[in-house]
Amino acid sequence: MEVYEAALGRRSVRSFQPKAVPTALIQKMLEAARWAPSASNIQPWKFIVVKDPSMVDMIRKVSPGIFGKPTTLIVVCSDQERAYRLGGEQGRDYFTIVDTALATENIVLVAHSLGLATCIVKSFAASAVSELLDIPDHARPELIVTVGYAREVPKPPPKLTLNEVAYTDRFRNQLEMK
Amino acid sequence: MEVYEAALGRRSVRSFQPKAVPTALIQKMLEAARWAPSASNIQPWKFIVVKDPSMVDMIRKVSPGIFGKPTTLIVVCSDQERAYRLGGEQGRDYFTIVDTALATENIVLVAHSLGLATCIVKSFAASAVSELLDIPDHARPELIVTVGYAREVPKPPPKLTLNEVAYTDRFRNQLEMK
Repeated sequence: MEVYEAALGRRSVRSFQPKAVPTALIQKMLEAARWAPSASNIQPWKFIVVKDPSMVDMIRKVSPGIFGKPTTLIVVCSDQERAYRLGGEQGRDYFTIVDTALATENIVLVAHSLGLATCIVKSFAASAVSELLDIPDHARPELIVTVGYAREVPKPPPKLTLNEVAYTDRFRNQLEMK
Repeated sequence: MEVYEAALGRRSVRSFQPKAVPTALIQKMLEAARWAPSASNIQPWKFIVVKDPSMVDMIRKVSPGIFGKPTTLIVVCSDQERAYRLGGEQGRDYFTIVDTALATENIVLVAHSLGLATCIVKSFAASAVSELLDIPDHARPELIVTVGYAREVPKPPPKLTLNEVAYTDRFRNQLEMK
């Protein structure tokens, strides 16, 4: 699937079939995440693939942002220790958030191109997730990606138009279009 | 170009040819950015395409993270006012960073698939950039994407292996591979 088509066609899916995601596909999503850009190439990220049904269920219970019953979760964590050691306070407090988000977008785009459905979740009890997954103090769950096969793909949400969000040369200066 | 190939093949380029980027291609990058996922669909982003050579030059001078002479910059801003109005403090302080990063990854992947070279820059004097581009107080430049045609594409940087960054079911639990 073309990148442009994937970026426009990907939807946030909240309704899944009870069908496992093949390991080979998860591996491709993680490879794409691993090659995301990273400030000073610090790569302040860890990815936990949760497939054990009882663990998925426990995480669902502490995550108001998870809808439906995804068969797989990818918990995207920042590695605060590594980020601070290699990038100082800015590395720990800012680059971790940016870099894990960049990697997460790679995950959802590759997933979409492989026929999988995902949703990026920000609403979860981080401390409970950390405890369930044995995440050490020096790491932090930033985002959870739900992964599965869509039961239902929602229609595109309303989006601001290009003219409402983009400018040329100065803020509020009308975007030059082709 | 396949999404997976784009995610793995994209490099951060810091050396550009003096060749303008067609408006139609910039428009595709912005369309992809506009369709990025966004918490509660708030879309707390603004994109300023900087093509005026003297403006590009002035921004370069206040941006230690810009290398080479890109012909185009896309300044990715958060819209703090919108984020706070629709998402409260968490919206303003956290979702803005995540969502602008998700959109930025769409930009660089689509750019790569169109034969363009980019680099995501985090090191710049935000207040100077805001003044140059008339960015109001309620918005903030988060990231700058340099865009152009590569003069030289660097080799892939050293990356942590999949086993070093990914686990199954629990932190430090070896990743299940196909």
